[in-house]
Amino acid sequence: MTLALERRGWAVMLLALLAALAGPAGYAIAQEEAEAPAATEEAVEAPAEEEAVAEEPVEEEATTEEAPEEEAVDLGIGYAFDNAVLFFCAVLVFFMQAGFAMVEAGFNSSKNAVNIMFKNAMDICVGVLLFFAVGFGLMYPLGYENNAEAAEHLDTAPGFFSFGNLGLSGYSSGFSVEVDWLFQAVFAATAATIVSGAVAGRMKVSGYLIYSAILTGLVYPVSGFWKWGGGWLTRFGDYDSTANEFAMAFQDFAGSAVVHGLGGFAGLAGAIVLGPRIGRFVETKSIPMPGHNIPLAGLGVFILWFGWYGFNPGSQLAFTSTDDINATMHCAITTTLAAGAGGIVATVLSWLMFGKPDLSMGLNGILAGLVSITACCDCMTDWWSIVVGAIGGVLVIFGIIMLDKLKIDDPVGAWPVHGLCGIWGCLAIGIIPNDYLRDGATSFAIQATGALSICAWGFGTMFILFSVLKAVGLLRVSPEEEQQGLDISEHGMAAYTH
Amino acid sequence: MTLALERRGWAVMLLALLAALAGPAGYAIAQEEAEAPAATEEAVEAPAEEEAVAEEPVEEEATTEEAPEEEAVDLGIGYAFDNAVLFFCAVLVFFMQAGFAMVEAGFNSSKNAVNIMFKNAMDICVGVLLFFAVGFGLMYPLGYENNAEAAEHLDTAPGFFSFGNLGLSGYSSGFSVEVDWLFQAVFAATAATIVSGAVAGRMKVSGYLIYSAILTGLVYPVSGFWKWGGGWLTRFGDYDSTANEFAMAFQDFAGSAVVHGLGGFAGLAGAIVLGPRIGRFVETKSIPMPGHNIPLAGLGVFILWFGWYGFNPGSQLAFTSTDDINATMHCAITTTLAAGAGGIVATVLSWLMFGKPDLSMGLNGILAGLVSITACCDCMTDWWSIVVGAIGGVLVIFGIIMLDKLKIDDPVGAWPVHGLCGIWGCLAIGIIPNDYLRDGATSFAIQATGALSICAWGFGTMFILFSVLKAVGLLRVSPEEEQQGLDISEHGMAAYTH
Amino acid sequence: MTLALERRGWAVMLLALLAALAGPAGYAIAQEEAEAPAATEEAVEAPAEEEAVAEEPVEEEATTEEAPEEEAVDLGIGYAFDNAVLFFCAVLVFFMQAGFAMVEAGFNSSKNAVNIMFKNAMDICVGVLLFFAVGFGLMYPLGYENNAEAAEHLDTAPGFFSFGNLGLSGYSSGFSVEVDWLFQAVFAATAATIVSGAVAGRMKVSGYLIYSAILTGLVYPVSGFWKWGGGWLTRFGDYDSTANEFAMAFQDFAGSAVVHGLGGFAGLAGAIVLGPRIGRFVETKSIPMPGHNIPLAGLGVFILWFGWYGFNPGSQLAFTSTDDINATMHCAITTTLAAGAGGIVATVLSWLMFGKPDLSMGLNGILAGLVSITACCDCMTDWWSIVVGAIGGVLVIFGIIMLDKLKIDDPVGAWPVHGLCGIWGCLAIGIIPNDYLRDGATSFAIQATGALSICAWGFGTMFILFSVLKAVGLLRVSPEEEQQGLDISEHGMAAYTH
Repeated sequence: MTLALERRGWAVMLLALLAALAGPAGYAIAQEEAEAPAATEEAVEAPAEEEAVAEEPVEEEATTEEAPEEEAVDLGIGYAFDNAVLFFCAVLVFFMQAGFAMVEAGFNSSKNAVNIMFKNAMDICVGVLLFFAVGFGLMYPLGYENNAEAAEHLDTAPGFFSFGNLGLSGYSSGFSVEVDWLFQAVFAATAATIVSGAVAGRMKVSGYLIYSAILTGLVYPVSGFWKWGGGWLTRFGDYDSTANEFAMAFQDFAGSAVVHGLGGFAGLAGAIVLGPRIGRFVETKSIPMPGHNIPLAGLGVFILWFGWYGFNPGSQLAFTSTDDINATMHCAITTTLAAGAGGIVATVLSWLMFGKPDLSMGLNGILAGLVSITACCDCMTDWWSIVVGAIGGVLVIFGIIMLDKLKIDDPVGAWPVHGLCGIWGCLAIGIIPNDYLRDGATSFAIQATGALSICAWGFGTMFILFSVLKAVGLLRVSPEEEQQGLDISEHGMAAYTH
Repeated sequence: MTLALERRGWAVMLLALLAALAGPAGYAIAQEEAEAPAATEEAVEAPAEEEAVAEEPVEEEATTEEAPEEEAVDLGIGYAFDNAVLFFCAVLVFFMQAGFAMVEAGFNSSKNAVNIMFKNAMDICVGVLLFFAVGFGLMYPLGYENNAEAAEHLDTAPGFFSFGNLGLSGYSSGFSVEVDWLFQAVFAATAATIVSGAVAGRMKVSGYLIYSAILTGLVYPVSGFWKWGGGWLTRFGDYDSTANEFAMAFQDFAGSAVVHGLGGFAGLAGAIVLGPRIGRFVETKSIPMPGHNIPLAGLGVFILWFGWYGFNPGSQLAFTSTDDINATMHCAITTTLAAGAGGIVATVLSWLMFGKPDLSMGLNGILAGLVSITACCDCMTDWWSIVVGAIGGVLVIFGIIMLDKLKIDDPVGAWPVHGLCGIWGCLAIGIIPNDYLRDGATSFAIQATGALSICAWGFGTMFILFSVLKAVGLLRVSPEEEQQGLDISEHGMAAYTH
Repeated sequence: MTLALERRGWAVMLLALLAALAGPAGYAIAQEEAEAPAATEEAVEAPAEEEAVAEEPVEEEATTEEAPEEEAVDLGIGYAFDNAVLFFCAVLVFFMQAGFAMVEAGFNSSKNAVNIMFKNAMDICVGVLLFFAVGFGLMYPLGYENNAEAAEHLDTAPGFFSFGNLGLSGYSSGFSVEVDWLFQAVFAATAATIVSGAVAGRMKVSGYLIYSAILTGLVYPVSGFWKWGGGWLTRFGDYDSTANEFAMAFQDFAGSAVVHGLGGFAGLAGAIVLGPRIGRFVETKSIPMPGHNIPLAGLGVFILWFGWYGFNPGSQLAFTSTDDINATMHCAITTTLAAGAGGIVATVLSWLMFGKPDLSMGLNGILAGLVSITACCDCMTDWWSIVVGAIGGVLVIFGIIMLDKLKIDDPVGAWPVHGLCGIWGCLAIGIIPNDYLRDGATSFAIQATGALSICAWGFGTMFILFSVLKAVGLLRVSPEEEQQGLDISEHGMAAYTH
């Protein structure tokens, strides 16, 4: 009864969160109503056009609030094209949520499969709302098109919760702020969902939802701002006052560290604070807990690879010019080759080490290759991308073995795949020949600084959060509940019946 | 033996259906041959070009029949772009078929999984053929680009089975009639497949195929014509003879009512006429029949959300102008936020009501948010889209409870998700501030009229059809077959073996 | 112990393969370093621009090596558009790998599911690396834009391993060579993965990896060159020295024979040399071995159909002109209708023949329709595409029955679907009225020659390879291992636990 009450308590908290969204909504509505007369005025000026709007509303209607400003301007086919390509890339990245869910569900016990689907479904639901209300404004306080300008005006930034403002105040990107938001939101959700795998099988639902909200709404946007919002990781070397820019910057094209490293290290913090699942390490022995549905896990890896074609090539953000589209296609090929190399090398290594080709290792090797190339898919040559992916495939195996030795229980290998290879992808830019190095746009020290500081931020904040959750009894289910499985204990339903 | 004969009988009927398609095919072939000399003539005039065609046919060949007319005109990159975006959106919508199949299979018993896959696979096969031969011409008798013109010439329309004519006779859309057909066809198949979930576990295959053919070929196109083909739901208020248009119209951007409401209410009719599965309601008690594979159901919801990015943004239909592409991106963001809000609210509500967060409710809440925003993804602000989705999340829970109280057995909640939220999405346009209301392009009364008349049409026609099927013994399997499972009794195979 | 050693041996071989890739990589790196001074020089000439590159590298960077050549030219929005559409089509084709994996896993025993996922994951990993290092250069020795020129210069071609050269030496396509490679690479991987299904349940992992490497790196590119690289199958009829082209050519738009026929017949060779699974044919009786997870197989078919929208429409390769985009959309509609017709006809036939509608047959019928229309999706009218797909649906049933009679064990029907219907799709162009026939660009004899020679090449080379593998003991696992299942014997893990 008390337990049920406590659970209801958390539901109320979630509801409060949603209510908190209503405040800005009210503001937005008030604003909208204040603007309405202006719109009417304009209608008087152009009655014929207004008429047309009334009759063919589908064709003429744009986003309600911005219509007055944008009506007169047509930015041409290039603008439409950039939007459309970024949109389809965002949609591919969205689908990675399904991939993560399948990989995690497949590689864990059937008694936790409902819980895993729940976490992954709620990740994206909570994530998009919080990244809308808070995260996006926090990450791009002045829009990110002109990083230097952002840097200059940081003191006068309109505040963190400025999504609405961003849309209205001269945001001059090559694409709609809305598709930009969508692309960024699914990245944030990716960072959040990575953690899910590392804490599988023993974490309370309420604690998980709190973690997920804080990561998507606060932690990810802050470190994301450091790099993609024009923060300190973009301001190394000399400052050129004419161009209003810095000579050097931490390079992380699509987020090996910004997204994957952060998620991987947040997951590591969770795995450490939670402790291993019961029975995972008995005395000095490590006892593998095999996944319950390997075909699902394999499907998940295929879905992730598929979605990665949105993640990496889409991060080019502009697609119209020949240079841009060529660069986008280059990202596609390096992503492909690194995934292939990572998969083969991890398979071969597992074969050499354990005597049989291990599918789990092969699948994790593919993901390792993908994570590794994420930072540098733009600047590595095709041949070097194979090397980057292959080294990722080595690292993931040693990461898994290392965690095993340290008795840290990361059920799906979230840290070896996303944390370790996330760092490697960034360091590679400081080691392997590429144009950034050649042009002096970065250095090994800057790459190391960037990657490590983002991962440390993820690990540190999340270690504190998970410790607090532990202190207040919201982190880990009871041993009885764990052994029964979270599906029954947390959700009251089984994943499989007949 | 008699049973086998009866079964063979239905196969023969299906074959006859296919043979019926051969009639128009013969006509088309005859036409084609009649046109061939003209093509040869033209070849004489331009031998050099003809030569090139012969050698590089892949590059130069367009659709065979229309080549002579179109050869000279290039409509520019905007035309190509609109086609390509609509094509990829259609492909995303197509994939929703897999999502529906997974949700239905996962949420039902394993003994009916083969039958569910069969129904979903045949839905799209039968659907595309019938929508090609009959439905498309029925829904857009004169093309839908100019609704008013369609309205004017309705008496002289070239007949219902006019797909071929449509392509040849001055159809002047911003995109190829073929991609338009594809986009519309997968919408029709969506309407059909929604019903599958509501009648799961007890319906005969032969009856289902008849239903599916009639819904895709006749019922959906008729009500679709009312709104999207220029029918009576687009003709409210004053008629402006200059612009040849009516001042007001029922608004349903991507089909909350036209597609989902129709499907949901058709499903309700099926669930009522069929009666509940054996053991679902025992005396005064409702006995839940849990799904056999929740990860599959979760995957299905992810696939549906993914596909919805084609369904809603794609319904903008034009993408080249800045206003159009901005509107498209706006649909993407409202769709995302409504899905998230629906998922969270349904989860929270289930948590409050049942003491544990129910994954089935959460997943249905996501779908409820998606269905709700479908009608109004174009006209709601981002903030209001959260409200629309959240209310959808409330409605789906109460819809499920209501069906339970009424002892109506809808195994996957097709009516609460698609029927109830389908109506809500349309009503929201009459309630929540938006440009249609502000401009007087619609009213609550018109929205209610439109949504209810489409749903009543779906419910009424299908109630009659299912009743007829019942009367002739084609509706429900025997109790023995039901308890054995439809996989063995209807298909002679099991979904799972070892 | 010896066994483990042998296994390690094969891992070493794989490693050697990867090392072999390092040779050209070293060359590429050396080349790159040699070019670096030039790049620096250029930087001196344009310091302002270089500065901008340093600060906004994401926007300005193109593929590292080619940047100097391409910097000055912008090919316009048409170029960007063609690239983007081909890219998204390639991504859809990539996802077909997941579809093949699901179909094969679902239609086979659970004791081989890990092995099946392994083969499918490694297919694409090995495939992309080998097609990069060897296959692409082999298939398009001079680029394929101008087939006649390729034909002329065949003697002076820069050699088979010319991917790098291809990119640098005046390759003048309408799109980036990198997206072109991606599109071709996923086609090669498709050919390879088809075989996987035919040899399921009894083949050694090491033998399979050797086969997969040879097919993707050598066998597929050779026959691919015959048709798509400007080889002998494009050079029939009179030679026009002015246009530098031949009057007639074997027509196979998206690869009914080039991809599917080759894969299907290679699979047939494997099935014959391996022999049937234990217990599949006992004395004179054929004993069906049902699949272990039909919903997964159904999901796989939906994924394949979804991916086919990249396979067929994408093969248009150019999308900007009105003729091209109309042709692309035409491919989409014919693909859809053929799939539907194939699915219905196979279902109806199975219903008539066996008394119940067989889902496996229906699903294979859909695939049969898709394979059949692949060669001729561009040239068939909508109505004729229904006929093409329907005949595919008949052929697949008779193919399955025929293999059964011949006691050839092809567990997923790879040959009936891909081999038989692959030939049919090509022959249809020689039989059913279409513009190629009308214009004299091909004939039944040429179509038969092309389809049969490609299939014979696939069957012949693979029969030899599988026979060699058999002779050296690398082909088939022991009866004990087979009965235990390949998951445990080859990979040491089970697909399902609880």
